Amino acid sequence: MLESLLRPQSVAVLGASRSPGKVGHEVLANLQAGGFEGAIYAVNPGADEILGLPCYPDMSSLPEPVDLCLVALPVSKVEAAVKEALAARVGSMVILTAGFKEVGEDGADLEARIAGLCQQHRVRLMGPNSVGLINAHHKLNATFAPVMPPVGGISVISQSGALCVAILDWAASQGIGLGMTVSFGNKADLNEVDFLEALARDDETRVIAGYLESIDDGERFLAAAQEAADIKPVVILKVGVTAAGAKAASSHTGSLAGADIAYWAAFKRAGVIRAETFESLFDYAQVFAMQPLPRGRRLAVITNAGGPGIMAADAAEGSGLELVTPDAATQEALRAVLPSAASVANPIDVIGDADPDRYMAAFETIQTSACSDAILVIATPQNMTRPVELAGRLAQAHEGKKPLVAAFLGGDRVEEARRLLTSLNIPNYSSPERAVRALRGMVDYATWRHRPPRVVMRFPVNRRRVERVIRWHRRMKLRQIGEVEGKEILRAYDFTIPMGRLVETSSQAVEAANQIGYPVVLKIVSPDIIHKSDVGGVRLSLATAEQVRDAFDLLMLRSTRSLPEARVRGVYVEAMGKRGREVILGMTRDPQFGPMLMFGLGGIFVEVMKDVTFHLAPITADEAMQMLKATRSYSLLTGVRGELAVDLEAIAGGLQRISQLSTDYPEIVELDLNPFIVGQVGGESYVADARMTLGPQEEE
Amino acid sequence: MLESLLRPQSVAVLGASRSPGKVGHEVLANLQAGGFEGAIYAVNPGADEILGLPCYPDMSSLPEPVDLCLVALPVSKVEAAVKEALAARVGSMVILTAGFKEVGEDGADLEARIAGLCQQHRVRLMGPNSVGLINAHHKLNATFAPVMPPVGGISVISQSGALCVAILDWAASQGIGLGMTVSFGNKADLNEVDFLEALARDDETRVIAGYLESIDDGERFLAAAQEAADIKPVVILKVGVTAAGAKAASSHTGSLAGADIAYWAAFKRAGVIRAETFESLFDYAQVFAMQPLPRGRRLAVITNAGGPGIMAADAAEGSGLELVTPDAATQEALRAVLPSAASVANPIDVIGDADPDRYMAAFETIQTSACSDAILVIATPQNMTRPVELAGRLAQAHEGKKPLVAAFLGGDRVEEARRLLTSLNIPNYSSPERAVRALRGMVDYATWRHRPPRVVMRFPVNRRRVERVIRWHRRMKLRQIGEVEGKEILRAYDFTIPMGRLVETSSQAVEAANQIGYPVVLKIVSPDIIHKSDVGGVRLSLATAEQVRDAFDLLMLRSTRSLPEARVRGVYVEAMGKRGREVILGMTRDPQFGPMLMFGLGGIFVEVMKDVTFHLAPITADEAMQMLKATRSYSLLTGVRGELAVDLEAIAGGLQRISQLSTDYPEIVELDLNPFIVGQVGGESYVADARMTLGPQEEE
Repeated sequence: MLESLLRPQSVAVLGASRSPGKVGHEVLANLQAGGFEGAIYAVNPGADEILGLPCYPDMSSLPEPVDLCLVALPVSKVEAAVKEALAARVGSMVILTAGFKEVGEDGADLEARIAGLCQQHRVRLMGPNSVGLINAHHKLNATFAPVMPPVGGISVISQSGALCVAILDWAASQGIGLGMTVSFGNKADLNEVDFLEALARDDETRVIAGYLESIDDGERFLAAAQEAADIKPVVILKVGVTAAGAKAASSHTGSLAGADIAYWAAFKRAGVIRAETFESLFDYAQVFAMQPLPRGRRLAVITNAGGPGIMAADAAEGSGLELVTPDAATQEALRAVLPSAASVANPIDVIGDADPDRYMAAFETIQTSACSDAILVIATPQNMTRPVELAGRLAQAHEGKKPLVAAFLGGDRVEEARRLLTSLNIPNYSSPERAVRALRGMVDYATWRHRPPRVVMRFPVNRRRVERVIRWHRRMKLRQIGEVEGKEILRAYDFTIPMGRLVETSSQAVEAANQIGYPVVLKIVSPDIIHKSDVGGVRLSLATAEQVRDAFDLLMLRSTRSLPEARVRGVYVEAMGKRGREVILGMTRDPQFGPMLMFGLGGIFVEVMKDVTFHLAPITADEAMQMLKATRSYSLLTGVRGELAVDLEAIAGGLQRISQLSTDYPEIVELDLNPFIVGQVGGESYVADARMTLGPQEEE
Repeated sequence: MLESLLRPQSVAVLGASRSPGKVGHEVLANLQAGGFEGAIYAVNPGADEILGLPCYPDMSSLPEPVDLCLVALPVSKVEAAVKEALAARVGSMVILTAGFKEVGEDGADLEARIAGLCQQHRVRLMGPNSVGLINAHHKLNATFAPVMPPVGGISVISQSGALCVAILDWAASQGIGLGMTVSFGNKADLNEVDFLEALARDDETRVIAGYLESIDDGERFLAAAQEAADIKPVVILKVGVTAAGAKAASSHTGSLAGADIAYWAAFKRAGVIRAETFESLFDYAQVFAMQPLPRGRRLAVITNAGGPGIMAADAAEGSGLELVTPDAATQEALRAVLPSAASVANPIDVIGDADPDRYMAAFETIQTSACSDAILVIATPQNMTRPVELAGRLAQAHEGKKPLVAAFLGGDRVEEARRLLTSLNIPNYSSPERAVRALRGMVDYATWRHRPPRVVMRFPVNRRRVERVIRWHRRMKLRQIGEVEGKEILRAYDFTIPMGRLVETSSQAVEAANQIGYPVVLKIVSPDIIHKSDVGGVRLSLATAEQVRDAFDLLMLRSTRSLPEARVRGVYVEAMGKRGREVILGMTRDPQFGPMLMFGLGGIFVEVMKDVTFHLAPITADEAMQMLKATRSYSLLTGVRGELAVDLEAIAGGLQRISQLSTDYPEIVELDLNPFIVGQVGGESYVADARMTLGPQEEE
């Protein structure tokens, strides 16, 4: 995929320059310095020769149509140059020039025109406002960045060019190997999705590390990210997560940041490891590129200093890894090779005077023992430590069956050892906490990779019934679907709905109540009254005909008094359901990622404690159950303080049904079952109130 | 303080050695290499001369009593050596040797004996199991650590010697200046409190950075830490915070870790900045040592790359700093010096091609503008950046009125600039997030420093009443104080308690009810029944004499049936209080830090949502109010969802009263007002149920 861009056989630099420091010079120099093995063409009408290469006056003079055309011209000349390049039948295009969408409307128009031109010619465009791209395995350095890191398995995609430059510099200084480095700039055409797809298929890429400020097409992103994550780890730092950050992001890129919750939900679904900070992006990327995935969450720590061992233990517990005490045989084996003052529990403290021999004896015991899934070796530079020797021997002895990471703490005395570890594919972290967090990322990813097949249950639905309701609302130009018709739709999805009838007179109300059976509930029905309780529009537990008659008259009186403008359609007479636990099932449609399901316990749990969980639809039975378990108030559902356990399956089933409803009917943009009343296992669960919102009607 | 230890005029090394690598050799070599200006004596009966120094056979042969005696002998020889040193009238003692408390009971006994000897001679002892100490300003390097960092204002105290070595190595490699470095080891005598006191008074120490695994005497620690924090910042990394960490800590140091919540409460009270990780310990220490405190929480960010600017904005919002948009005049001033594509909002994006001139123009505008309290300068190494020049000019231009921190991102291309920044007292962080977190630490500390004077209100108390209850329970050998007497104590502290009477027959119950007025509540009273409701021991809303009589008989019947062994004292007849919001006020006594108050909303908020806050007693009115506000459910108290606001002052007052009760009566080790019923403002708030626990009775 994107062969002419990522693995070109020939490259032209449009705007090649003789002046060092200029983009058109640096990119040409980098192409040469990188050892690119295809043809390199410099294009500049004002020069004969640049950096030893003959210079062509324009694209049409080139001896062949080139695969990759890099544009390094001032912004005013870019449009004409693109036309020229397209006419010369280039394979793909990268615009390095800045000053387009990011500087205002004129720039955005120009950018759109250029993208349109490329599209007409079916030429893929990267940029503008890009630093270029590197494919180290192809010896292609088509950037104007001033450094080149070693070749390796981490491929970077970045929406920020400046950050790309800092990453390249950092990777070079640390000896971290990179494969592809892609600065995709303003995304006039190619974006994160295209590169996720391409890098997923790139065999040299072992892990994809991405820096994103915005995601353009949520659905495509989800699909591409998941497909990539099924092949190799994808770690993404998505910034603009807070209100302040989103404001900064939008002023920077001109793109609106999506809601943070939706990103979390999307990344979780797609198996993307989300980096919380700039540092953690590469903390994760390194361990994924260098180490095998763990089979479980049991961590063994070997250390020559108690303190950092405790830090590791704290961090492990805080992030859900387990420090399991080794079994008796392993402890005995450790005791045989360690001095009596050493600790053979976990962390295994080989104590301060440990030399590499002692470290290795402990390491080999732990490596072969079955009581851990990952190993962290901590070393502080004591007199006997000999960090370089230790680093080399660890790398040599490591069989690669479980991940091994290191935290060699200190400064100059461990510096060489750290570099050696990195070059031997053992990631080193400057604190125990960071090492543990990286391993935690591996565990998360491994868990996702071994997830059970996602089977989304399909429920039989009476679609005619649903469509009738929607059609009626469309005809009436109503976007709010109130309780009566909302319940009609939910009944079509086989939710339990108490028996009920819409009536217009008090006699009808009594007749309905007689038919339904007492006690009943009466609720005002009006498209203009959404929160019925707030205006006194609900009367509960009516046990006699007289009470029903009184309630009807009161409801009508009160609603006309408090909201004289409201169009009242009547009163809904409904069987009074049994008491149970109130929960809320909801759905909102994220502009990027589509229907997002919500679950929370009713009332204060949602409104005050914000104790809610989200999941993208469609959802499986297992995922629905996970949503319940992820709330802090979960234990209230399973029976705590003498209360009885409620029917969890009924809630999970309800979530799956609204998941299906949301995917079946994209025109429903929001829905709320509030409350959904859950009974005990074997008892009744039913929808007590519901409302839905339709999206804006399309023009006819 | 500790003059002979921290600023000795003469030092002896007991166990000086000719063999490089041995502790007795390295410490001697370090004393010489450090340029110690006092006398250095090598003591070793088997040598004439070591490292050019004449060697003395024993301590009694020294020409003078030395200030500081360092013991570097094998563990078996230490006790005799200590006796010898004490006889020679040394000023203070450091035992570098390991193998004491940390290896088992025998070691602990030996350690205790040695500490006893020193105490008899009034000689202070540091260690054993210590790496020694450095006082850089005194040219004293009395450690066997192999590196020596530059001289500076950060003083380090560490319970782990190995970590000390790593810290020294790291500081040296980063060019971070240290003042004192103290490895206090097993704390046989001198501990964290002594060094907090000493370093607080050390003028060369600008900030104290501590690594602790345990705290021995909570009360002394609190006092010393607060006194130190009132003079200079104190940053502490306390490990063993989780169950796994605490287990590791205890196996490592033999000391039991205190409850984590109590540490948080203690650090907050004492103004200690708590480092969450190893890295953050020095992230904080650096900024405190190098920069002035901010006056507020408004952060200005200047960057040449959008991405890291957004990361900073995300981190700022996440940690409670504010990115305020500059006022119009400042924006205009920025526009005058920046290109049109730059962003003059905050973050101020000087864009990728900014040279130091442009950076400085933006920096000086922001520095003089009144719209920020702290400045973060981010730089990525682009072609025009010239990081070293930028670093130098920033340091030169910085007026020091607000803190300035930097995040120069990248590798080799920013390395020299980073070192320059550090040497010029501008802390540099390798990610925007870490820079922001460090500033957040400064804001927290500045807020604490400017806290209002702590005025703890004293309520008049009927002490006789309290003491009568306690005496009675002591006499009866009862440690549980039940509802009736618990309320008696609370009444003495002027809590509102519903009128009530303990009765023994149903006729008495009716008589009491008639006197109190209906409706009443009846509750079983038994020292063996703590959770009355659980055994059906409470009857509410009794409105007539007949109901009271029935309830009495039922209570007696049920309690004897379900708990036939329970000693039943009778039934408590109490006025039925008004309904209100249930909250819980509690106190537990932390073994280290004393009475710790607890607040939470009743029922599920505490039991399921764990939504509780803690504060060490004694507490001020303001702190009590902070406890309320810190709960997630706070908005329920101020009126949400149509409910009325409750009387916050009544809760805060209640917390203050139990704070006083807890300090007045140390023998009360636990108490629970559950529930405390809070009415609306101006309404009634009262104790609905209460219980207390007395500590174990002292032998008489």
